[in-house]
Amino acid sequence: MSVSPLEYLGDYLSSHMTATNDLILHRLQSPIDTIPDVARYLIAAGGKRIRPLLTLACTAMFQAPDARAHKLATAVEFIHSATLLHDDVVDGSDLRRGRQVANLVFGNKPAILVGDFLFARAFELMVETDSLRVLHLLSRASAIIVEGEVAQLNATGDDTTNIDQYIQIIGAKTAALFAAACAAGPALYGADRDTQDALYAYGHHLGVAFQIADDVLDYTADMTAFGKQLGNDFYEGKITAPVIYALHYGGTTERSFWARCLSNHDIQDGDFDTARGYLLQHDAFSRSHILAESHRDQAIAALAPLPAHPLKDTLIDLATFAVRRER
Amino acid sequence: MSVSPLEYLGDYLSSHMTATNDLILHRLQSPIDTIPDVARYLIAAGGKRIRPLLTLACTAMFQAPDARAHKLATAVEFIHSATLLHDDVVDGSDLRRGRQVANLVFGNKPAILVGDFLFARAFELMVETDSLRVLHLLSRASAIIVEGEVAQLNATGDDTTNIDQYIQIIGAKTAALFAAACAAGPALYGADRDTQDALYAYGHHLGVAFQIADDVLDYTADMTAFGKQLGNDFYEGKITAPVIYALHYGGTTERSFWARCLSNHDIQDGDFDTARGYLLQHDAFSRSHILAESHRDQAIAALAPLPAHPLKDTLIDLATFAVRRER
Repeated sequence: MSVSPLEYLGDYLSSHMTATNDLILHRLQSPIDTIPDVARYLIAAGGKRIRPLLTLACTAMFQAPDARAHKLATAVEFIHSATLLHDDVVDGSDLRRGRQVANLVFGNKPAILVGDFLFARAFELMVETDSLRVLHLLSRASAIIVEGEVAQLNATGDDTTNIDQYIQIIGAKTAALFAAACAAGPALYGADRDTQDALYAYGHHLGVAFQIADDVLDYTADMTAFGKQLGNDFYEGKITAPVIYALHYGGTTERSFWARCLSNHDIQDGDFDTARGYLLQHDAFSRSHILAESHRDQAIAALAPLPAHPLKDTLIDLATFAVRRER
Repeated sequence: MSVSPLEYLGDYLSSHMTATNDLILHRLQSPIDTIPDVARYLIAAGGKRIRPLLTLACTAMFQAPDARAHKLATAVEFIHSATLLHDDVVDGSDLRRGRQVANLVFGNKPAILVGDFLFARAFELMVETDSLRVLHLLSRASAIIVEGEVAQLNATGDDTTNIDQYIQIIGAKTAALFAAACAAGPALYGADRDTQDALYAYGHHLGVAFQIADDVLDYTADMTAFGKQLGNDFYEGKITAPVIYALHYGGTTERSFWARCLSNHDIQDGDFDTARGYLLQHDAFSRSHILAESHRDQAIAALAPLPAHPLKDTLIDLATFAVRRER
């Protein structure tokens, strides 16, 4: 069985990922025990560490990552973790990474505050990298992420959301951190602005492609492999790419069905299967994949100006992998 | 009627406070309308703007504040506002600045996310000041604030909390931002480390003094002037300085009373008046004031090494004012 580009990156960068994971565990420490308890519950539970891997991979194309890169990769993972803690409070999900969400185990209050802590600690780590450019990229990304989250909250149950609006939302909510994670490492070591911009664009389109593929997986995945509850988006009333296509191509009866389920949160037994039927009927998964593939192509195109490097090939493979994960 | 040191500072620095208030309103903008709606609801409702005033005053002792100082003062107010939004979700208070808390008006979810936005935007503003030292001071303060909030959450209803533990909690939760707000302005313009440390110590003790005085006001204030609900701390089960003294000097019956009200959240009609009776009986307010005064004295002592300046005298007056506000 072939190795996925994520696994390949993990192996290639294993000493740096080990250093980063050590730093993650070290820097979530606090004299107030609740903080490491909650943070470790989320972070040590796993997760693919895609964002710090991207930071280290994009760095390693230009320079061997050192302690500053490990700090940066840790900061990126902490920002991501902070948003997960707050998202789970806001979304009311039950599962994350195959286990109960932190706010159900520890309560909403500690989850909110520990999210704040990780965000603050991320900025402390970035200050330690001594790079104002890194701080610029990631503070900007942090504000954009929240704008995307608020926009998604506002769009919840809104069946007039169109695909362009949706791409804008996930471009902010998901892709902004992918983009900053890719650009920040080379920025740390003084890469020129064109290089930063190319990697930022790569990360952005990669993030959009990953998110759309996740949207499809939420309706089609094998739950054990997915690590999240199947149908999360459906039960939370999230209007995602496949639903937007189904709404667009569906008739009046179907629109009423989606409105009842997603806008009125009136979901009955069997509705999730009905939803999947409608989605299949209108090729909503294929259409979503075609959209994801266009972002895969844009991600790959963004890398074109960069010099040849084995890791560049892996980043290209990763974009392809993003839209072809097992379902 | 004499002018309070806060009013005096507001007048003295009026052009800078106007610039800062303009910047506050400008930088809470976002294409996602919910964000300025929630942020403006909290921030434009007033508040004393003590922290940005401190930043500008401490700056002005050494150098005329410019656009960078206004950005810094705005960042300080945004960090404070972010913590207020999250605090109100965590504490379940009803009123803030004389009106309903933002999370009751807009919901917990937008309040959490807009808090995150203000925090991210604060860091964007600090990056624009081009000062890594400022970013260090305020990212460190942000992490400490959260540690204080978690420690206070853990201590809620815990009648074994002693006064030293309590000072540690408010030193983190309240005083860390006062301290960083005072040190960061001069740091921005290259003040030496001794000066920064002196102002940091001043801000820390000022913050502790303010908080203890607030603890007393929560039981004794005229509600209209206070702008918060009287008895907030009591109804939330917060163990504050006066309660710690009442617990220390009270007998078994009283300890049961406090345990029922604060630990078991079983509060009946008349309990708040009973609580005030116990607090008066054990001189809990006077004892708290003596403690606040010791921090006032330490705040004033911290300023001693600084060169003479009219604003230095105002900062001394402010420390005295902190513990003698109208009740």
